[in-house]
This record gives sequence, C-alpha cells and structure tokens, in this order.
Amino acid sequence: MRNKGFLITEAVEPVLIGGGFRPASFSETFQAYNPATGEKLPPLYPVSSWRDLELALKESHQLVPELALTSPEKRARFLSLYADLLEKQRLEIISRAYLETALPAEARLNQSEFPRLINQLRQAAAACEDRSWCQATIDTKLNIRSKYGPLGGVVVIFSPNNFPLAFNAVGGSDLVSAIATGHPVIGKAHPGHPGTTKLMAECLLEALRGSGLPLSTVQMLYHFSSDDGFRLVSQPEVAAVAFTGSRPSGLKLKEAADRAGKLFYGEMSSVNPVFFLPDLIREKAGFLASELFASCSSGSGQFCTKPGLAIFIDDENSRIFLRHLRQVYAEPPSGYLLSPAVQHNLAEAIARLKEAGAELLIGGQPLPGPGFRFEPTLLAISGEQFLKEPAAFQTEAFGTLAVAILVKEASEMIKVAENLEGNLTAAIYYSSSSTADEKLYRQLEPVVRLKVGRLLNNKMPTGVAVSPAMHHGGPYPATNHPGFTSVGIPASFLRLAARHCYDNVSDEYLPEELRAKNPTGRMWRLVDGTWTTEDI
Amino acid sequence: MRNKGFLITEAVEPVLIGGGFRPASFSETFQAYNPATGEKLPPLYPVSSWRDLELALKESHQLVPELALTSPEKRARFLSLYADLLEKQRLEIISRAYLETALPAEARLNQSEFPRLINQLRQAAAACEDRSWCQATIDTKLNIRSKYGPLGGVVVIFSPNNFPLAFNAVGGSDLVSAIATGHPVIGKAHPGHPGTTKLMAECLLEALRGSGLPLSTVQMLYHFSSDDGFRLVSQPEVAAVAFTGSRPSGLKLKEAADRAGKLFYGEMSSVNPVFFLPDLIREKAGFLASELFASCSSGSGQFCTKPGLAIFIDDENSRIFLRHLRQVYAEPPSGYLLSPAVQHNLAEAIARLKEAGAELLIGGQPLPGPGFRFEPTLLAISGEQFLKEPAAFQTEAFGTLAVAILVKEASEMIKVAENLEGNLTAAIYYSSSSTADEKLYRQLEPVVRLKVGRLLNNKMPTGVAVSPAMHHGGPYPATNHPGFTSVGIPASFLRLAARHCYDNVSDEYLPEELRAKNPTGRMWRLVDGTWTTEDI
Repeated sequence: MRNKGFLITEAVEPVLIGGGFRPASFSETFQAYNPATGEKLPPLYPVSSWRDLELALKESHQLVPELALTSPEKRARFLSLYADLLEKQRLEIISRAYLETALPAEARLNQSEFPRLINQLRQAAAACEDRSWCQATIDTKLNIRSKYGPLGGVVVIFSPNNFPLAFNAVGGSDLVSAIATGHPVIGKAHPGHPGTTKLMAECLLEALRGSGLPLSTVQMLYHFSSDDGFRLVSQPEVAAVAFTGSRPSGLKLKEAADRAGKLFYGEMSSVNPVFFLPDLIREKAGFLASELFASCSSGSGQFCTKPGLAIFIDDENSRIFLRHLRQVYAEPPSGYLLSPAVQHNLAEAIARLKEAGAELLIGGQPLPGPGFRFEPTLLAISGEQFLKEPAAFQTEAFGTLAVAILVKEASEMIKVAENLEGNLTAAIYYSSSSTADEKLYRQLEPVVRLKVGRLLNNKMPTGVAVSPAMHHGGPYPATNHPGFTSVGIPASFLRLAARHCYDNVSDEYLPEELRAKNPTGRMWRLVDGTWTTEDI
Repeated sequence: MRNKGFLITEAVEPVLIGGGFRPASFSETFQAYNPATGEKLPPLYPVSSWRDLELALKESHQLVPELALTSPEKRARFLSLYADLLEKQRLEIISRAYLETALPAEARLNQSEFPRLINQLRQAAAACEDRSWCQATIDTKLNIRSKYGPLGGVVVIFSPNNFPLAFNAVGGSDLVSAIATGHPVIGKAHPGHPGTTKLMAECLLEALRGSGLPLSTVQMLYHFSSDDGFRLVSQPEVAAVAFTGSRPSGLKLKEAADRAGKLFYGEMSSVNPVFFLPDLIREKAGFLASELFASCSSGSGQFCTKPGLAIFIDDENSRIFLRHLRQVYAEPPSGYLLSPAVQHNLAEAIARLKEAGAELLIGGQPLPGPGFRFEPTLLAISGEQFLKEPAAFQTEAFGTLAVAILVKEASEMIKVAENLEGNLTAAIYYSSSSTADEKLYRQLEPVVRLKVGRLLNNKMPTGVAVSPAMHHGGPYPATNHPGFTSVGIPASFLRLAARHCYDNVSDEYLPEELRAKNPTGRMWRLVDGTWTTEDI
C-alpha cells in the first residue's frame, strides 16, 4: 500500500472486511455517477489494492468449516433478519439507488426491485428451514446416502450494474444462495452503485450480529483492478465464482477461474430473440409493436432479458407491423442509461450493426445532457444478411435497441433460429385464435428450445419471476452451464453445492438430513425411489 | 489423408461412423497388448486422422434435433436391447477383454464388471421410462414449468483403460447417460482394449437398428492424436465432453474445452485417503492390514478409488499395524498391470515419492516378464514430512501402492486432512465397540467431508455401487465439478442435461413431462412445492 493511500484514507469510504468496516488499502479512488445529471456523486470509494483482497480471503477462508456446519435455522434467521433490516432502511436505500442509477424510483425500485430483494431473502430463508433443496437421496438397502452440501471454500460474487438491489453482491440472488448453502462470501460491489451497496452491507452486518452467524461471513469491496480480480478467483481458498456482467469481462474472468480449476458461473450475454408468427402479426400488428417496445425499453433496455431481436416474415402484414414499430420507437426515451460506458457501448453497437449491413430505421443517436440518454433505436436486416454473418448481429448491448430480422419465408425463419447462439430466453408469439401458425410453431419450437434456457409463448422475456420453476440461464455464451439458474429458489442454491455422499455411515454420524428421522417432519427426501416426508 | 493410409486400409479395423463400420482415414496404426504376456495382439487398429473426426462430427451433429425429440420409450428400448445383445455375446466380449486387460476373467470380468455393465444399461432404461430424472418442476399459479432436457449438441466420451466394459466409451456409464438424455455420441475407445470396444460397438449398432434409434446415434473411433482431441472438443457441434483418465491428460483436454465454452466433466485423479483411528488399530491391526491390502491390490491397484494413503497415529499399536502391513504387502502380485505405460508410471511415482522423502518399506520394483507385473509396494512418511510438501504425496499412480502417513498425534492427523486435495473418496475407520475414537472422529469428519465426494466408515472405497444415492465425483482435482457424479442412475444423467423452462406455454405445446396429465402415471414431479405422481 502506498502512503498516498493512507493520506486520504479518512475521506474515503471504508470496506467491509473481517466483521467490520475498516480503512481500505488503495492507491486510487472512484465516484458514482448520477445518470440523470451526469454529475459525479460524493463520497470517494477506494479501488482496493491486493492487500484488501488478501485480507478478505484470509477472513473468509478461516470460516469455511464453521459456516459449513451452521444450522439451517441460523442461516434462515440471518436471511429473515437481513430482510427485516433492509425494510427498515427501505427509503434510504431506494433513494440512494435512485441517485446512483436513475432507475424509476417508484415503478422500478420501490414497487418492483426492492420487493424482489426482500422476497428472495424470505424465500431463501424458508427454503433453508425446509431443507428439501439438498435433495437427500437414500438407499436404505445399501446404506448409501447423498445430499447437496457446501463446496468447502469461499464464494466470490461479481455483481452487475443493472440491478442495484436484487442482484447486489451483498444482498442479491447469488449472496442468498451462497449463505443458504453455508459459504463465506467476498462480494464485489458494482462501482455504479457503491453507496447503495454500502447501505445494504450495513444492514447485512447488523443481521449477522443479530442472527449469530460469524461477523466475517461476508466481506465487501467496492472495486479492484481486473488483474486483481483474475488473481482473486485463482486463489486456493476460492471454491466458486458467480459473475453477472458483460461477455468480454465474463470470459476473461472465466479463463482465470477455469485455469485454476474453480467453479465459474457467468451470466454473460443474451439477445433474447422474439419470433412473431405471421397469422398473429396479421391479427395484432399494433399491439405487438407496443408490447415489444414496452419490454425493450423497460429499465431503458438495461435488462439481460431485453428482447433484442425481432424475427418475422417479410410480407404485407409485417410491413404494417414495421410501421407500428417505427411509430413506437419514435417515442422519446423515458429514462436514463446507467453510465457513460453504457451510452458509449450502445453507440458502438449501433455503428457495428450498421457496418455489418443493418439499416437504421429510427433513432441511433445519443441525446444531449444532462444525463445519459439515447434515442430508442430500431434497425432492420434481411434473413439473408443475418445468415451470412450471424455473429455480427448477436452482440448484446444495453439500451432501447432492437434489430428486426425480416425473413423471406418460414424455412428461412427456422434457419435463423438454427444460427442463434445460446440465449437466456426466446419468445414465440403465435395466433391462438386460429390454427394458421401451428405448423410453423411446431417446426420452429424444437430448434429454438435447444438454444435457450426459458422459452416463452405470447409473452415478453423481461420480468423474471422468483419461482422454483423459473430458469434464468441458458447455453453458452448466455451462461457457461445450461444446467444452472441464478434465479429461482431453491434451484439457484445448486450452483454453489457439492454432492456429499455417505457410505456405511451410522445414524449418529450422519448429517440430520440423512438420518432415519426426518429432521423437520416436512423435508422431502428421495428414499428408495420414492419422494417422501416420512421418517425412514 | 495420406495415400499410405489407403494402401493398408484392408488390413486395418474399420471405424463406426454414420451408421456402419467403414474404412478409417489414418496414417498410423496401433495394436493392443496382452498384459499377461507382454505381446502385442492382432489386429491393427487405426489412429484416425482429422478427416474421420470431421465425418463423425457431421454425422452426429445432424442428429441433434431428432435425438432430442425421441421418446423416452425408444431410448429405453435401445438401452434394454443393447443389454440383451451384449448378454448374448457375453463370452466373446469377456474373452477379448481378458486378452486385452488380463483382469481376472472370472472374479472381475464375468462376475463383477459385466453384470455391472448390464445393470447400468437396464437401470438407465428403467429411469428413462420412469422420466422422474428430469425433475419436472411446475408452478401452476404462474404457469412456469422447468425440467432437465438435452443440451443441443454432441457428447464426446473419452474412456479409461481400467474398466473395459463398465466405463467403455460405447457402453459404459457416460454412454448410457448421453443416450438416456437424448444426445448423439462420439466415443473414443481406450486404445488398451480396442477389440473389446469393437465387439460392444457391433452389439450397439444392432441395438440401434432394433430399437429404431438412428443408426448414426453413436460414432466410435479407436484412437486419434491428442491435438485432434483438443480440436474435436473445441468444435461448435460439441456440447459436452466426458473424460475419465489421468490428471495430465484430463487437464489438457479441459483447457481446450474450457476455452471453447464447452461443458467438461473430467474424472482425473484421486488418492483416496483412509484414516485409521487409534482405538480400532488397537483392536484389529491384523484385520485392518488385510482389508487395506485387499482393496489396494484389487484389480492390481488400478481403480480410481484405490486407497493410496493410509493415515494413522504413530504409537505402539500402529507399529504392530505396520508389521502386519509389511507382511501383507510382501505377497507376490496376483495380477497384471494394464500396459507398459502403467508399469512405467508406477516406477516413476515410487521414485518421486522416495525423492520427496518417503521410506520404502516393501516392494518398489517391477517384476520380470512375461507380462507387466510389479511388486506390491508400501512406503511411509511422517505427518511432518507430508505437511511440508503435501502435493508431492498426492499424485495418483495405478498399481498396488500405498503410502502410510504416520502422524504424531490427533491434531496432526487433522492438519493432514486439511492439506488434502479434492478426492473421490475418503474412509474413516473407527472403533464401534468403544467410544474412544469418537472425539477424534467428530473433529476429523467435518474436515474430511469437504474434501471428498464419498465419505466411508469402516469400509474400503473400492466397489462403487450403481445406486441412485451413489456419488462418484469430488472436488477438484478429483473432478472439475463436485456437484456431478459419473456413477449412480439417474443422478449421472444430470451431467449431460440443460434446464428447459417454459413460460406461459399452453398444454398442447408443452413436453409431455410438464403437461397437466402425468405422462406415465408414476413419474415424480415437484408441483407447487410438493413431490407428486398425480395429474395436475
């Protein structure tokens, strides 16, 4: 650590390491932006140097065995108490998140994302107490028993810019899964909303105190260099890495984690194609255009499930659909982009799309300040163009941006589907009042099915319900493992779980979940092929 | 392809590509060994050139959508029929396997491994028909439904030398999982038992024909270069790679697969530590020595679950234990090593262990031919030595070889456990007739638990039952994902499964497993939090 760092320590926010906020070790600082004004916000936050990461690792590592043995009840108590404490700070947290992200304070932050944050914590607390998530599987004849349990190492969480609350590194989906499964956590705040993260970390610390979990269970750093990030995920103490962010950053981090033999879960990019079948376009062109725009512009187009490709057959009706689309995309933007970087990436993406041959139908320009704004943008290409260079049209870019792919005929639509990369979602809109779209649906669906995690019908992909049946994941490069989800409790717990098998172990040495007596009386267990809540 | 390859084509075994055996494209050939005589066995097998791999990829790739849609009944029919046909060829297959591996024909191949092969196929057929493996999860209120389904690409299987039948690339555990989950397969035979693999591939082809699955569902190649292997697993057509073999080969293949964003499942190495607690040693030193030797020498020490480390406290009783161990390890070897390479690796491993400071107690030398034999070998080190350089004593080597670690006291035993790498298994032997070992057990177990997939009590790790509760996997570097198992049906299916979510999809467009009506009337589904076999 350089002296320079020490000198300005007092003016710089402390980091959460070892059970309390302490001065960071750093040589650089940063500030958040107010996206609505373009101004930098006080205070200064540290870009931690390796010394902070090293300390965070040490503090986390020594808790690995203890946290693996904490009771589900204690973990649940923490998760519930954390939700309670966040609710008490609701206004303060939302206000700061609004300042740092300019996401709609009422409709988005207060009515949608904050409740989701709380809901996740409470669902996780319930799933913890219920214990069924560990899928206890018992062969009574051979006395072999397995269940999911902790990995035996530290979980590192890298959180994204677009969900300051529900995917926050110290309170979002990954944190919840890591705690529920018994791991210490190093959370890297997103530098776009450090103040929000600090407020949440304060509640978290109080919840640790109140629930009896060790105070060092979670370390929180605001920022560190990419190189320190690669170094962090390669350390022996680390068991798994959860990353939500851009594809280039995700792939670099994945490379470092892979090389060191660490579990890596990256949610990296998705263009979320929407297929509009012809008979429905004939019926509802205007409605569909509004529906697409509403989803595409939601959160100013900064959702990982934003519909970025609209695929339909080039015919008379679709020309009407296109006219409607031009109309709705001509609306002025209703919100702000999260940062100058997002604005810059969007402009670059549009330039690349145009260079690859896409026609700009509407929008395409940043808007003057104050604040980071951009015109809603619609581009169009033919199916033939797409098929010549499919990768060129499948780069995710945040912002109200969609590319219409006009295919000649049904068979070309299927070819487009065959040339899709892995995505989080795809939607197929078809007419349910006639059967005219059925034949194409039945040809298209099996192709689309294998390309995505979640397949929707007549529904836009934004809005990812926290349900046990939800899947928020998909084939590479949307994520790097299509078997895991980051949303949906308790399924998301499994990303951070090892399978623990016990062979010939007597009842008193088994974990409660695998003993003869059902530990809660209502935990589901697969006993000799039958799911049951009974004792054995 | 060089002309040279064409010229000797007729004398060289054909490969299975595109639904039939066809001349290979190659420029080199190889032969199998008879490990009992050291002689090379006819015929010649091709080391396929890239052209074969390219063809195999093309044939497999075009079946991806079709196989994803095949009915579970058809997949099950194939698996059952394949088992029937293998049983008809039982003697021929076992004879060839005996010739190529010199594993005990009766006790191992006929009474153990062949029944296991058949058992796996029949269990997989039953699991396919049952469908519960796909874990259909249904939220009726939100109409969101998920289940496991195929990955949407080709599965490549690299099989090991030590299980010519039950882990064979075209009939073993991975093949069974890949077919049950609806994938085309490219299987690379292990070059140690090409003739066995060919006999199995012939049955497989007949079973494909008889069951109505496409004939090109499985391609089988005998051998190809490492570089072609890396290239193969990086191709866009490939979705997942299952590898069972050595750590150096596995890590190289993993690197290639990781870089291309492919799922990789490697079972790479394990030394399977066995902890003997002091009171049990006092009671049963002689019995324990025999038990360890029996497991360590089983299959001539060529099991991935071979106990390779024996850890116990250095006291009066353990000196008696050591005397017994010296006695049992002084027995002449009862079998053969699989190849000159295994013999060479074993000699090298012993040299490295000695160089790192291990004391050779007994054995340590290859035996003169004919055949590949080696003296049972026992080495010893102190706990202090181990803790100075833990990695040096944790390299897997096939052969009847164990390293005894004599620790000073209980706390040092726990430190040894803390310094273990990830393993497939660990066993703790304790006295169940007294409570003297209990305290140490309770300190040791939580440490060991997080280091291994399967934890055994008073039982040796060799012998991996095919049970739904079995786990054959473990933390890195034993495997690269501790959440997945390669043995145990249907759990092993999940390595090759993506999660498929349906959001707002009406009944007629849902896969059968997610419709209102339970497709089999007995398939388990998690409906609104309750496991049930009922219709919705």
